[in-house]
Amino acid sequence: MEKVFEFLTPERAFKLAKTVGTPTYIYDEGELCHAAKDVLNFPHAFGFKARYAIKANPNAYILRLFDKLGLHFDASSGYEAERAMLVGINPEKIQITAQEYPKNLKYLLEKGVLFNATSCLQLEMFGNEFPGKEVSIRVNPGIGSGHNNRTNVGGLSSSFGIWHEWIPEVKKIAEKYGLTVTKLHTHIGSGSDPKTWEKVVNLSLNAVKKFPHVHTLNLGGGYKIARTATEKSTDLLVIGLTVKKAFETFYKETGRKLDLEIEPGTYLVAKAGILLSKIIDKVSTGKDGYTFLKLDTGMNDMTRTTLYGAIHPVKIYPANGILPKEKETVVVVGHCCESGDIFTPVPGDPEGILPIELPKSRVGDLLAFGVAGAYCASMSLINYNSFPQIPEVLIALDGKFILLRKRQSLQDMIALECEEVLDLT
Amino acid sequence: MEKVFEFLTPERAFKLAKTVGTPTYIYDEGELCHAAKDVLNFPHAFGFKARYAIKANPNAYILRLFDKLGLHFDASSGYEAERAMLVGINPEKIQITAQEYPKNLKYLLEKGVLFNATSCLQLEMFGNEFPGKEVSIRVNPGIGSGHNNRTNVGGLSSSFGIWHEWIPEVKKIAEKYGLTVTKLHTHIGSGSDPKTWEKVVNLSLNAVKKFPHVHTLNLGGGYKIARTATEKSTDLLVIGLTVKKAFETFYKETGRKLDLEIEPGTYLVAKAGILLSKIIDKVSTGKDGYTFLKLDTGMNDMTRTTLYGAIHPVKIYPANGILPKEKETVVVVGHCCESGDIFTPVPGDPEGILPIELPKSRVGDLLAFGVAGAYCASMSLINYNSFPQIPEVLIALDGKFILLRKRQSLQDMIALECEEVLDLT
Repeated sequence: MEKVFEFLTPERAFKLAKTVGTPTYIYDEGELCHAAKDVLNFPHAFGFKARYAIKANPNAYILRLFDKLGLHFDASSGYEAERAMLVGINPEKIQITAQEYPKNLKYLLEKGVLFNATSCLQLEMFGNEFPGKEVSIRVNPGIGSGHNNRTNVGGLSSSFGIWHEWIPEVKKIAEKYGLTVTKLHTHIGSGSDPKTWEKVVNLSLNAVKKFPHVHTLNLGGGYKIARTATEKSTDLLVIGLTVKKAFETFYKETGRKLDLEIEPGTYLVAKAGILLSKIIDKVSTGKDGYTFLKLDTGMNDMTRTTLYGAIHPVKIYPANGILPKEKETVVVVGHCCESGDIFTPVPGDPEGILPIELPKSRVGDLLAFGVAGAYCASMSLINYNSFPQIPEVLIALDGKFILLRKRQSLQDMIALECEEVLDLT
Repeated sequence: MEKVFEFLTPERAFKLAKTVGTPTYIYDEGELCHAAKDVLNFPHAFGFKARYAIKANPNAYILRLFDKLGLHFDASSGYEAERAMLVGINPEKIQITAQEYPKNLKYLLEKGVLFNATSCLQLEMFGNEFPGKEVSIRVNPGIGSGHNNRTNVGGLSSSFGIWHEWIPEVKKIAEKYGLTVTKLHTHIGSGSDPKTWEKVVNLSLNAVKKFPHVHTLNLGGGYKIARTATEKSTDLLVIGLTVKKAFETFYKETGRKLDLEIEPGTYLVAKAGILLSKIIDKVSTGKDGYTFLKLDTGMNDMTRTTLYGAIHPVKIYPANGILPKEKETVVVVGHCCESGDIFTPVPGDPEGILPIELPKSRVGDLLAFGVAGAYCASMSLINYNSFPQIPEVLIALDGKFILLRKRQSLQDMIALECEEVLDLT
């Protein structure tokens, strides 16, 4: 996995550590562009749009870059849609697929944002507020393939989307409010297996058959990235050709040319990110115990390891510039006062400890986690143990370093605390 | 567990939902005072201090209240100590026990903050910066009893504190810098078993014997609160008497009267907190599937359920004021686009789903999670899916409602985003 650290040369790492300080997130614009190009080349039979799943990394610069490169956007909440608009994204390029019906949906729709109803109640609320409109619906086709239960978003145990058996109910609601269902969305998790994709596409196309006005099928999820040597990336070309073929067959059978939409998050940003930290301590629990490398970052900055047992590749940047040949077996731990703050768990089991072999390091060396661009800065236990939220920096195409988020101060952290008597009369 | 909802009467719940909106944290000053009194009555043989573990809930009002009631403070980072000082806590009442040696320790110590060295390197750094001073050390006595691996902070697999076998090394460092070890700290996790406590106290007292100038033994951790009917609270009186007896025996044997310190976090705030949310949707995956109650809160506001499979008691507040006799079996889920956003997992297994029986509810009813005062607001995936950080409200002793934290705006959320070219020359 050395390749994922290529953009962070030792020279850059130490310059950034000196200027911005550690810990910090570092993104590579080249890798972001590369991933966007990959996604925009997704094979398709007819029309095509790729939507970036903003929740993976909602930093303003990244949204604007993807906008310029031709991506559209998927917002997981009304807030997320508004956030994207606030930083300059054209509302017409944003579609909301949310578990929570946005309170200000009228405002958002007037601006041009698109809405994808994910439950019968959402469809009913939408119909009531906007009778006679076109609408998209999310359907749970009854299959899922997440890499663990917590990222599996299809099937019986998933609350996401309208369960396929309720399609007659959808039709009733649509008729009641004069709605036309023109887009259909399914989402099956983060799997990389083409066979699962084939099944889902066919299930989804069967659902499309029930809605004569649907012109677009959105296939969310499943654009997985390998974070370690043993994990498998989704091969977009393989998956894409499967999907393309199914759309062509559907056309032959029905005469309907469907547009395709996909919604990658991880795929677009994961590899472009690194979390850079410093080794601040090295402790041991004796000959029957472990050697621990302690970092100045932790589960407060990057939570997915302690949350899922997700493994990120590690690279040491020795302070003296010389990587020793000698190895050591260590447990890498964070700086929070919580024993779960471990970066080397048993893969998929955050309660297990699995020491890893690294070049022998010293306090003061830098330690980087690779493939940390997705669900890292955006999904973290911000301010746990009162550590300030960390900065985000971009290495631009021209080699310049651009600060994308300032390090939080203690004053920022407590700015919203107050002592205000409420009038409840 | 009905008792934990007593302070949130239906009238108060609906008033707050109307004024502050949902979701919101609600704290009860009476319950905070009650818990503080309990802790301050901890049996002890000689001198005694109780330190509140700030990380459990660092809200300024709560810190100031506990300060007035006579508690001292335990800070898990240099930032946390400074945060407490910023809101008015006397630095001399704060002790830092951190995995990360604070960069500004000199400033903090000059103000009066106390320091507890948790590794040989920390002791060395302290000695180097402050030769000749008195110091506290944290020792890992080689035993632990957390309720799961992730909250077990003693034993071979814990990096916290100086492993007991390195005490000779501690003595060398102390001698080198003329330091006097006057306080000793052990911390064994969150167990409620008195037998474990007896072992730990005796192991800790054995360590004290090796340091003739130690006048205070700090026994951290272990002050557990039952969050559900099947969990067990730590009985402070039982534990306290065990500890008191051991201190008295130690005095008889050695002639040394030790002061006792304890550091509860959860015990002081857990029961005083409720997370109040609204039921926004109800979906089903058919007769072989589940019925899901969907809330306007989620893993972004209260993360410990999806993190540990931690169970919180649930209460429905019907919008029409009438609790139906009819029950239903439901999975309670959050509003994040992530299948792990489930509030009813298998206890201790966040990947499992365990539907619970609740009075039949309707969209628009309020749903409250009890025992949500500790590690809830302070340990959450803030801004995941771009949901704003939620408010905190206190019900004061006089019945007034006091806003302790304002709801975050989208502007607050992105205030630190920027696009600033860095000069790295």
